[in-house]
Amino acid sequence: MNYRLTVAYDGTRYKGWQRLGNTDMTIQGKLEHVLGRLCGETVEVIGSGRTDAGVHAKAQVCNFKTDKVWDEETLMKELNAHLPEDISVSSAKNVDESFHSRFSAKEKTYVYTIWIAPYPPVFERKYVHVYGGDLNLDQMRKSAEFFIGTHDFRPYSSDKTKKSTIRTIHTIEIVRTDRKIKIAITGDGFLYNMVRIIVGTLLDIGSGNRVEPVWIPGMTREDAGETAPACGLTLESVKY
Amino acid sequence: MNYRLTVAYDGTRYKGWQRLGNTDMTIQGKLEHVLGRLCGETVEVIGSGRTDAGVHAKAQVCNFKTDKVWDEETLMKELNAHLPEDISVSSAKNVDESFHSRFSAKEKTYVYTIWIAPYPPVFERKYVHVYGGDLNLDQMRKSAEFFIGTHDFRPYSSDKTKKSTIRTIHTIEIVRTDRKIKIAITGDGFLYNMVRIIVGTLLDIGSGNRVEPVWIPGMTREDAGETAPACGLTLESVKY
Repeated sequence: MNYRLTVAYDGTRYKGWQRLGNTDMTIQGKLEHVLGRLCGETVEVIGSGRTDAGVHAKAQVCNFKTDKVWDEETLMKELNAHLPEDISVSSAKNVDESFHSRFSAKEKTYVYTIWIAPYPPVFERKYVHVYGGDLNLDQMRKSAEFFIGTHDFRPYSSDKTKKSTIRTIHTIEIVRTDRKIKIAITGDGFLYNMVRIIVGTLLDIGSGNRVEPVWIPGMTREDAGETAPACGLTLESVKY
Repeated sequence: MNYRLTVAYDGTRYKGWQRLGNTDMTIQGKLEHVLGRLCGETVEVIGSGRTDAGVHAKAQVCNFKTDKVWDEETLMKELNAHLPEDISVSSAKNVDESFHSRFSAKEKTYVYTIWIAPYPPVFERKYVHVYGGDLNLDQMRKSAEFFIGTHDFRPYSSDKTKKSTIRTIHTIEIVRTDRKIKIAITGDGFLYNMVRIIVGTLLDIGSGNRVEPVWIPGMTREDAGETAPACGLTLESVKY
């Protein structure tokens, strides 16, 4: 049997999605631990991709295979009864054997939230990056255009991989309310730290510390902006 | 000088608004402690009203008098720099000497949030009452009508006061999204636990445990519903 789960998590106290040795302070580790007990066998949970330490998810997608046959609602209920309150499973579906959360994923959307009000946030304090002042949105939107399309995003990542670092960004939407700026980035996939480095660069531009994003052949990681803090980032959705 | 503050707080770890002896695990206590140090004198903070232990506020209003003359923005910044991250001051204004947060208040709105999705909340887990199933909204809205207007709300309160328990409720709005039901109650003032007991009664009705609210002369506290949990309640706004 192959089950697909939709998972929300508050990443604040976790070391990210990916299981690390014996520690279970990872989302994957927590899910595998609970599923192992529920299924009575070792279970490997495959995520649509990793999220970094401290990054949140509204609808991460993962799947796992097991010999145990589950009623979908029972599986969701049992998982939620045993998971900690900062991880929640909003859907459990029995899917075709061929479904693979990572390989089958077509598009992902991340949302980065920046707090711009002159006083600190209370209810969202763990889910925003506190900037505490306004940013030049026109300039940020103009600069965001540079990133749309298919590029080699290596300088905008902390990836040391030898694999391809070419990715396609479909849209970047920047929306302001009186308290927050939300940057929604949708693409076919993202390199390690890629969203946070793009956001860090846009923050430089919005605050006037940088005129425009560098986007030239031969540029390096040092030419891009800082990696924006993890707490402001949420994996919003994964499309299949 | 008389200063009016707008304060947001996450009430989770506090024993409510009102100062209790020497403990400072109250919102009033925290504010008075910080203001005392900033003003260099003992400061009494007057709130628009008390909120119970565990109840939150988006825009509680309070005022205090001091000999110290403050620039409004500096006062707000200093307060936020010294308050814990679950209390935030979103506005500080120099107001007329006659302004009194409690006596001058004309209308208050409380919002009670009920989580109805079949899976637990992650990001709002401290700010909702987890019911985890749907409620009969038509019946709740119909029953809410009973409470509108001027009544003796004594049986719908935990108040032991000898003062008047007559209050006026202006509106009760009940709105559902796919995950939450929000009950917004606006009135000229509320007795101790009044909003939570009205909500508890409406929960009984929405879940089918009770047909309609009892609203008869001579009724007692026992005839009303349970006091709904504090975590779901937020003081939304105070009008002057």
